[in-house]
Amino acid sequence: MKSPLRLGLAGLGTVGASLARLIETKSETLTNRVGRPIELAGVSARDRSRDRGFDTSQLAWFDDPVALARDGDIDVFVELIGGETGPALDAVKAALGRGLPVVTANKALLAHHGVALATLAARSETEILFEAAVAGGIPIIKTMREALSGNDVTRVYGILNGTCNYMLTRMEDEGIAFDDCLKDAQRLGYAEADPTFDIGGFDAAHKLAILTSLAFGCEIDLDSVFIEGISSVTNEDIEAAAELGYRIKLLAVAQLTETGIEQRVHPTMIPAHSALAQVDGVTNAVAVDSDLLGSILLAGPGAGGDATASAVLSDIMDVAGGVLPPTLGLPPAKLVPYRRARMRAHEGGYYIRLSVYDRVGAFASIARRMAENEISLESIVQRRREHAADATTAPVILVTHETTEAAVRKALELVSKDGHLKNEPKMIRIEALD
Amino acid sequence: MKSPLRLGLAGLGTVGASLARLIETKSETLTNRVGRPIELAGVSARDRSRDRGFDTSQLAWFDDPVALARDGDIDVFVELIGGETGPALDAVKAALGRGLPVVTANKALLAHHGVALATLAARSETEILFEAAVAGGIPIIKTMREALSGNDVTRVYGILNGTCNYMLTRMEDEGIAFDDCLKDAQRLGYAEADPTFDIGGFDAAHKLAILTSLAFGCEIDLDSVFIEGISSVTNEDIEAAAELGYRIKLLAVAQLTETGIEQRVHPTMIPAHSALAQVDGVTNAVAVDSDLLGSILLAGPGAGGDATASAVLSDIMDVAGGVLPPTLGLPPAKLVPYRRARMRAHEGGYYIRLSVYDRVGAFASIARRMAENEISLESIVQRRREHAADATTAPVILVTHETTEAAVRKALELVSKDGHLKNEPKMIRIEALD
Repeated sequence: MKSPLRLGLAGLGTVGASLARLIETKSETLTNRVGRPIELAGVSARDRSRDRGFDTSQLAWFDDPVALARDGDIDVFVELIGGETGPALDAVKAALGRGLPVVTANKALLAHHGVALATLAARSETEILFEAAVAGGIPIIKTMREALSGNDVTRVYGILNGTCNYMLTRMEDEGIAFDDCLKDAQRLGYAEADPTFDIGGFDAAHKLAILTSLAFGCEIDLDSVFIEGISSVTNEDIEAAAELGYRIKLLAVAQLTETGIEQRVHPTMIPAHSALAQVDGVTNAVAVDSDLLGSILLAGPGAGGDATASAVLSDIMDVAGGVLPPTLGLPPAKLVPYRRARMRAHEGGYYIRLSVYDRVGAFASIARRMAENEISLESIVQRRREHAADATTAPVILVTHETTEAAVRKALELVSKDGHLKNEPKMIRIEALD
Repeated sequence: MKSPLRLGLAGLGTVGASLARLIETKSETLTNRVGRPIELAGVSARDRSRDRGFDTSQLAWFDDPVALARDGDIDVFVELIGGETGPALDAVKAALGRGLPVVTANKALLAHHGVALATLAARSETEILFEAAVAGGIPIIKTMREALSGNDVTRVYGILNGTCNYMLTRMEDEGIAFDDCLKDAQRLGYAEADPTFDIGGFDAAHKLAILTSLAFGCEIDLDSVFIEGISSVTNEDIEAAAELGYRIKLLAVAQLTETGIEQRVHPTMIPAHSALAQVDGVTNAVAVDSDLLGSILLAGPGAGGDATASAVLSDIMDVAGGVLPPTLGLPPAKLVPYRRARMRAHEGGYYIRLSVYDRVGAFASIARRMAENEISLESIVQRRREHAADATTAPVILVTHETTEAAVRKALELVSKDGHLKNEPKMIRIEALD
């Protein structure tokens, strides 16, 4: 039997407490599988007295995570504190500086400092493992870094935020309005009191920025992600999507184009019969298109204490077995700079919803503006008038064939100027999945 | 730069030739990713003169794969010969005997000799990697062995045979009869001249037997797999399934029950709205249920030269990086003996199709036999008579709630004895997926 792997665990929230319990209850199984015991050798959290469902009295306790990382008698530092700066960043730097491998679930830390930390790790001949940082329990990091290591990736995309997917699913299934759905999600613990990070698309953008680096061997560039959240999606959009054979998901997409890489997070219509469209509730899913494999899809739990702890545990098991792949799939010096695509995000079809004044010639005028901008229409439908009391406008739904975002924005600007629209036009991108 | 990893490659069929080309064309990328060059140092195949799309003149050529495995100046032996005995087995044994890691795509070899070979490998302090042996390009072996290493698995199931899935998809989409569909599949290269191994369910059974070992930490037991192929599935069954909200797939299922492990491969009705039901054509998919993750699903290409070579390549990259996990997820001595479940395979719902003589009381008599065997019916439907010329029988379709296979078999035997049936009853198992 080899010597035990001694963990220093910083952060005892939902995931940290779950991990600590698993290391205790699964001790024998884990030892059998990896050939050496896994031990909790030091712990850091804010309040030692809180009951977390396991015995902390025998553990070496550090009030300061940086002290644990710097001085703990440990072989690996597990960072489950969260946050892109402060103690999480300082502790990870301290651990890497000592040459300790770091296991983390911290997407913000990686999205902001991933390349710098990978460089620091490489300098100390160690690495950072972060399976839990993207898509919770889905092994997408291992898959991209190891299983696809012979592939050239052309696109990675998926449903990366469980809160948004839960809300869109309930809005569709039960016809609940966005605001009521959000209240429910908050009551059930699927959304934070301040939900902006999730429903604004920022959480998904952080995860996407990390995947982009693994997919294309480039530096992480969070600032280049085009981000649009789900708060503008209405039940009417969801109904119209269903009629057209689509479902609306918050999709995160990173794609290699001729001029560079495109990263975007936005509500997207995807074909109702695609496998991704069946991914409901808090489940996450990621698809990768590559030269050798064509397309593969992974779906599973995107959050939750045990599911996330499972991902952390698999990284710890890798460390225990001596497996330390390069943090971002390549040695940091081999990462190429991020090259942003020249085009405005997304080339594809568009769903456009207009509130049009009910006047002779409006329809024809809108169609002409589209044609002028070389936008070919798949369908143009006038739906029932919006309210009995407001008979002067009617919703018009356009579905375009493949075009560019620039063309659509230009055409809609002109339609607005023509005075046909009561409100700002609404636009949802359509993604062709194979 | 570390020293090159020298490959000995035995077998230059579709996958082997694809692999050899990739090692040449992707040389720089692979070297960057793994930190050392990957070189083809020796090759063995039957006919040296055949054009395989790459230059073999500079390679150390072995007519005998065993000689390559035994004497080649190589660091890893890649077995792509196929077959459970003969040169593949002998060469793998020779390589392991020398302490060389083996990478193979050979499901039959592993399903029959996996535990013995893993034991031989462990004795020489090496391992066998076999990502390509199950579900082609889908990284299910890595996922089960590494990503799920903290999990206790309760069920693994999936669509593991592309030929069958291609045929069932076309039968459903185009209403083509089984025999015509098979001819098409053969013409397109999706089915062998002798298709028994695929459509009889044997190929899926081999793959399932390997997954079962990884899922439950037990020895491989191919003989315990209950196998039923797809040749009895008719267009009428597929239509009836669609009406009931199901699709028919050849599912391979390994499940932990109270009395042991159940392994089965058979045509199965799965809910039309499940993600697995969207897996069409030659695509494969595998789902794993486990304690920490709940359920995860992986879908992707199950066959093809490049997709399979991609899986082989990921194993080679692991070897190059010094990653050698235990062949079957545990040291061979820790594998528990396979314990077969006591019950007849499958507990769940059943679809039953009867050709019933059109007589007063037949319906009631059938329903009574079901009740006597404590089978509760979800629906019982008499469909249109089978032929205008044969007005004496009518198809009756029963859908049962959850019950056991033993009860269904007993009830159908009695119904047959009662003289109501023109033909043997037809039964398709229903799998509840969450």
